[in-house]
Amino acid sequence: MKPVILTGDRPTGPLHLGHYVGSLKNRVELQDSHQQYVIIADAQAMTDNFKDPQMIRENIVEVALDYLAVGIDPTKSTIFVQSMVPELFEATFYFLNLVTLARLERNPTVKTEIAQKDFERNLPVGFLTYPVSQAADILCFKADVVPVGEDQNPMIEQTNEIAQRFNHLYKKEFFKKVRALGGKQGRLPGIDGKTKMSKSLGNAIMIGESFEQIKKKVQKMYTDPSHLHIEDPGQVEGNVVFTFLDVFDPNTTEVEKLKGHYRRGGLGDGTVKQRLTQVLEELIAPIRARREDFAKDKGEVLNMCRQGSEKARAVAAQTVAEMKQIMGVGSI
Amino acid sequence: MKPVILTGDRPTGPLHLGHYVGSLKNRVELQDSHQQYVIIADAQAMTDNFKDPQMIRENIVEVALDYLAVGIDPTKSTIFVQSMVPELFEATFYFLNLVTLARLERNPTVKTEIAQKDFERNLPVGFLTYPVSQAADILCFKADVVPVGEDQNPMIEQTNEIAQRFNHLYKKEFFKKVRALGGKQGRLPGIDGKTKMSKSLGNAIMIGESFEQIKKKVQKMYTDPSHLHIEDPGQVEGNVVFTFLDVFDPNTTEVEKLKGHYRRGGLGDGTVKQRLTQVLEELIAPIRARREDFAKDKGEVLNMCRQGSEKARAVAAQTVAEMKQIMGVGSI
Repeated sequence: MKPVILTGDRPTGPLHLGHYVGSLKNRVELQDSHQQYVIIADAQAMTDNFKDPQMIRENIVEVALDYLAVGIDPTKSTIFVQSMVPELFEATFYFLNLVTLARLERNPTVKTEIAQKDFERNLPVGFLTYPVSQAADILCFKADVVPVGEDQNPMIEQTNEIAQRFNHLYKKEFFKKVRALGGKQGRLPGIDGKTKMSKSLGNAIMIGESFEQIKKKVQKMYTDPSHLHIEDPGQVEGNVVFTFLDVFDPNTTEVEKLKGHYRRGGLGDGTVKQRLTQVLEELIAPIRARREDFAKDKGEVLNMCRQGSEKARAVAAQTVAEMKQIMGVGSI
Repeated sequence: MKPVILTGDRPTGPLHLGHYVGSLKNRVELQDSHQQYVIIADAQAMTDNFKDPQMIRENIVEVALDYLAVGIDPTKSTIFVQSMVPELFEATFYFLNLVTLARLERNPTVKTEIAQKDFERNLPVGFLTYPVSQAADILCFKADVVPVGEDQNPMIEQTNEIAQRFNHLYKKEFFKKVRALGGKQGRLPGIDGKTKMSKSLGNAIMIGESFEQIKKKVQKMYTDPSHLHIEDPGQVEGNVVFTFLDVFDPNTTEVEKLKGHYRRGGLGDGTVKQRLTQVLEELIAPIRARREDFAKDKGEVLNMCRQGSEKARAVAAQTVAEMKQIMGVGSI
């Protein structure tokens, strides 16, 4: 049996290069050696977008298109829509008893997010409890491995705590320990140099971006603000163009050469940006082409999601049935 | 269309005379004029008994027996088990987004219960959020009326807030306002004179109590502690024997006479207690007989619960499907 992976995204917008580097690329690599479930977490997206379910709904197909475009293969990976697997909410309900309020309020990831979103006293309970829902997603598929960014380690800890508490209380080693799989790549900065590429910050290059857009966005990229004349020595550290070349340019020797030249002076931003534009276009062009191709029949893409959801539902329903049998609820 | 009632109990023990006076009697009266759903709330009982699901499981049939014994008629009322209607948890999940943490923490009923149970920082989130689950129970059956004790009014308020918020956010007058139906009778005290009859306080007379037990419990009843000799004047107020006679003795003229006599002096506790024993036996004897009769085939009782749960599930599933369509989740 292949080890099981659960991974996925909230469908709040099409995906960008940050997602590509941080997770999508990995998923394509892992889908042969693993049984991979890819969740389009629309119900989780509702926890802080409950005022705008239409936006979430529209983005389900966009995210699915991104998956297909980068090479996630629905014959290998099970791509599914969270809200179409209601057993996940049943599991969440029972898991809520196994977590204290104090524990949820201590979750560093959620704490940061709450602060960012300025919820304060109007914190929706659904948002506070989303780690419990995530634990249900992970445990219902009996995932062995969950790929996470470093800021998501607390989610895996919370999941393992719930799993252990369940096993202990109901006296059965039912849930295994879940392992976090850290990304090999660090986090990709936005084109403005901010630490995180994010659609909402307006600093992202999308998965299916047009050549014109790539060119335009690379032009706007943050470099070294004190590198005013070509002949001036320039700084490479924190220079987003070089950060991107480090990540995306396969010719590392050439990149090192360029860095040396830039540092010494005599290499203009324009030249480096031209190279990066080319490098990104080479990466994105085939993805964009596949995306456009799949986008011709969105009905077919949704159909693929429906089939994946049915398959996922059967697995989750089985786990929840087992869970309930162990607890002794749900049947008489 | 008959107005819809949702009512029910947590299956944490067999029911007692407090339940009879406060709700069971009412249900028997209302089941002809209303479409009545009677929930055996095992999943809600789990929120503060998650360590002992076995106890809850065993009490489901006991509570169902009490229902049948007092005359709740499964051909008129739909008796069902909460955990067998998983759509309720799906509704709860979406409702959690519509309630803030501050609002839940402000719920006076839950606040009191949290203090009583001494949860403090170990408050299980499932317990804090049970009013949201209750709201889902009520709204999934589109209940018009919910019979409540006075300490449960906050639950109806919370339900109506969630309903209004849903209607407002998703721009449809989907949920109606739910009305609380206050009991005609006040709360029955325990035999020890404490304000609340409760199995866990050990001061309850059960629905199917034996004659010997009734006699013994009435003997132990709290009267007037300063009424030491028969000839002493006695106090009727706060005297549990008279409180019970007020509630259960159909001959009110006789009760008033006895009160006068007791107040003047010359009437012993023993005489009044003998009368109450007789009055309670007359009430309980036929209930006990029916209970024993139904208890001969517990399998059949469980079967009745299964059928009720299937019927209830169809109704809740329909409501949740409509809810999801309005929100635009759950299908693509």
